[in-house]
Amino acid sequence: MSHSIAVIPGDGIGNEVMPEGLRALEAAARRFGIDLNYTHFDFACCDYYLAHGRMLPEDWFDRLKGFDAIFFGAVGDPARVPDHISLWGSLLQFRRAFDQYINLRPCKLLPGIRSPLAGRDPGDMDFYVVRENTEGEYSSIGGRMFEGTEREVVIQETVMTRIGIDRVLRYAFELANRRPRRKLTSATKSNGISITMPYWDERVKAMAGHYPEVTVDQYHIDILTANFVLHPDWFDVVVASNLFGDILSDLGPACAGTIGVAPSANINPDGTYPSLFEPVHGSAPDIAGRGIANPIGQIWSAAMMLEHLGHQAAAQAIVTAFEAVLTEGDPRVLTPDIGGQGNTRTLGEAIAARI
Amino acid sequence: MSHSIAVIPGDGIGNEVMPEGLRALEAAARRFGIDLNYTHFDFACCDYYLAHGRMLPEDWFDRLKGFDAIFFGAVGDPARVPDHISLWGSLLQFRRAFDQYINLRPCKLLPGIRSPLAGRDPGDMDFYVVRENTEGEYSSIGGRMFEGTEREVVIQETVMTRIGIDRVLRYAFELANRRPRRKLTSATKSNGISITMPYWDERVKAMAGHYPEVTVDQYHIDILTANFVLHPDWFDVVVASNLFGDILSDLGPACAGTIGVAPSANINPDGTYPSLFEPVHGSAPDIAGRGIANPIGQIWSAAMMLEHLGHQAAAQAIVTAFEAVLTEGDPRVLTPDIGGQGNTRTLGEAIAARI
Ligand SMILES: CC(C)[C@H](C(=O)O)[C@@H](O)C(=O)O
Ligand SMILES: CC(C)[C@H](C(=O)O)[C@@H](O)C(=O)O
Repeated sequence: MSHSIAVIPGDGIGNEVMPEGLRALEAAARRFGIDLNYTHFDFACCDYYLAHGRMLPEDWFDRLKGFDAIFFGAVGDPARVPDHISLWGSLLQFRRAFDQYINLRPCKLLPGIRSPLAGRDPGDMDFYVVRENTEGEYSSIGGRMFEGTEREVVIQETVMTRIGIDRVLRYAFELANRRPRRKLTSATKSNGISITMPYWDERVKAMAGHYPEVTVDQYHIDILTANFVLHPDWFDVVVASNLFGDILSDLGPACAGTIGVAPSANINPDGTYPSLFEPVHGSAPDIAGRGIANPIGQIWSAAMMLEHLGHQAAAQAIVTAFEAVLTEGDPRVLTPDIGGQGNTRTLGEAIAARI
Repeated sequence: MSHSIAVIPGDGIGNEVMPEGLRALEAAARRFGIDLNYTHFDFACCDYYLAHGRMLPEDWFDRLKGFDAIFFGAVGDPARVPDHISLWGSLLQFRRAFDQYINLRPCKLLPGIRSPLAGRDPGDMDFYVVRENTEGEYSSIGGRMFEGTEREVVIQETVMTRIGIDRVLRYAFELANRRPRRKLTSATKSNGISITMPYWDERVKAMAGHYPEVTVDQYHIDILTANFVLHPDWFDVVVASNLFGDILSDLGPACAGTIGVAPSANINPDGTYPSLFEPVHGSAPDIAGRGIANPIGQIWSAAMMLEHLGHQAAAQAIVTAFEAVLTEGDPRVLTPDIGGQGNTRTLGEAIAARI
């Protein structure tokens, strides 16, 4: 069986980590006899925007919708294009148009990576953040009034729907139900965000009724971030709104040592549209061009993509490979962010060689 | 000069830590010859709500508005009253009605308290979160439609105003300008929250023009929470919207070891209305009634109140006292959350004895 993959490196270090993601993918494909066909796209980046006045060509939807998956780097270059234009014109548009309503992000302490948390070992932190990925706080409704005057007012609406909430909850409960601890934590803020978040809580309660074997707890987002730092071992599956999931899935990987290695899957579980796989990190303009970005976020995203495409063993081989390289910890191979003197390529090649 | 203080213990451990806050206050008042008059109120708690159907009496505004300050414990008891009712009916109402538009929260590693962050010493973390406290994501506009049906939709509006943003920014810039490092960090999320947050960024840029000596940087809230964990030494003054400030001012104290000791000042800088001083922690129903809550959050809030009332030396004496008790680290005195076998009272008395 052959899979068609749309490859979109984007901006900054997206272009540097993408080749290593592809290298790992190729190594796994060769070993497991998987047929992957790549099509490379040069849109969804700021160069494209500056040349064409938009982030994507007009026919982007039709050009991408038939792919089995999208393998994405990172987008944004705020010195040249405001972030909300570059992001809403590309990545955030993909998530919505392709109804990738699940953003799945593992938070896992890896061997050989030093956690900033004192005395934490790999066994202490191994959970998933399941983030709602299409609605909520990331709305496009709102605007400004009395512009440029003292009484200027700016409004943006958070929009939550029963359909939108229930489907992400169902996914999270199903995931929790398959894991040994069967524990689900809901991120809320219903004491302060007094209209949408109490509704979120109600839906969690309703959904919990269908999963009697899953233990459910909930924390307000403020204390939840505190508990990520104080008690990372408490968590198994954490389900959160778009904004809260965004925050937790940077904080979680930071507690695991670095967001440089964290992957994410933007999933359309119905399979109507392609799902999109990308590292959690951004385009990192501050280090772009130096070839020192950590490629593991991209490589781990490749593993999540293979798993999504049904190749569990190949996905596992990639994870096993980068865990082995990290355990070995050869400083000539590792990138500077994890204490090495190597670069994007040395680390990517070492991992591919192990697959 | 005499100061009138409204004392509102609230719910749960609010009632347990309040006596220790008052004990410290009295000790400082005696030593520095300050005349404090207390009036105790039994409203703003869930007992009051269950008896009267509301959190506050009808004339609460008139009864409180003339005080020089409000000394507050904690409110909420979700098993008996939904949080959004108890909080919006009391604390959040005070913040708005008394225009306490600054929520000032120190994040400081204290001697003798173990940070969850590896290898961090007190010198590595000493910053303020300045939180906008009256508008933003904590709005009361929005509602539900198509209730109880599959197409149910729930909307809540984030409302930011130029007046509201500029005044909190001005306060934060002034504070940064008085500190040796003169550094201000703005919490944003303008890549995702595409209407209100770009406006926030614009106002930061405009205000920065008036403070050429303050170094300004900004981070999206997701990576900012990561940087609190990875680089707490980067920060000096962090300014944030209502929601982002709420998150950062729990996460910051957690990185400093425990939110049990963190204080906060809800300030009306114009002096038109009383300011309110309260610990960052909540009413903690899980440990309420056992007498083991850490009273330092309440005691440190007393110090912030004295400072606000113009008694800098008395405020400092309280801080010096609890730092001394923490440095000493007698386990018979300390509460369990910081590794002791003592209780709320032993710790409160030890601190008062040092003032
Ligand atoms: C209790 C809650 C409404 C409150 C808030 O979110 O403001 C609290 O978390 C705080 O930080 O003071
Ligand atoms: C770049 C940004 C818009 C995006 C988000 O907030 O979703 C990113 O932070 C992420 O987590 O994928």
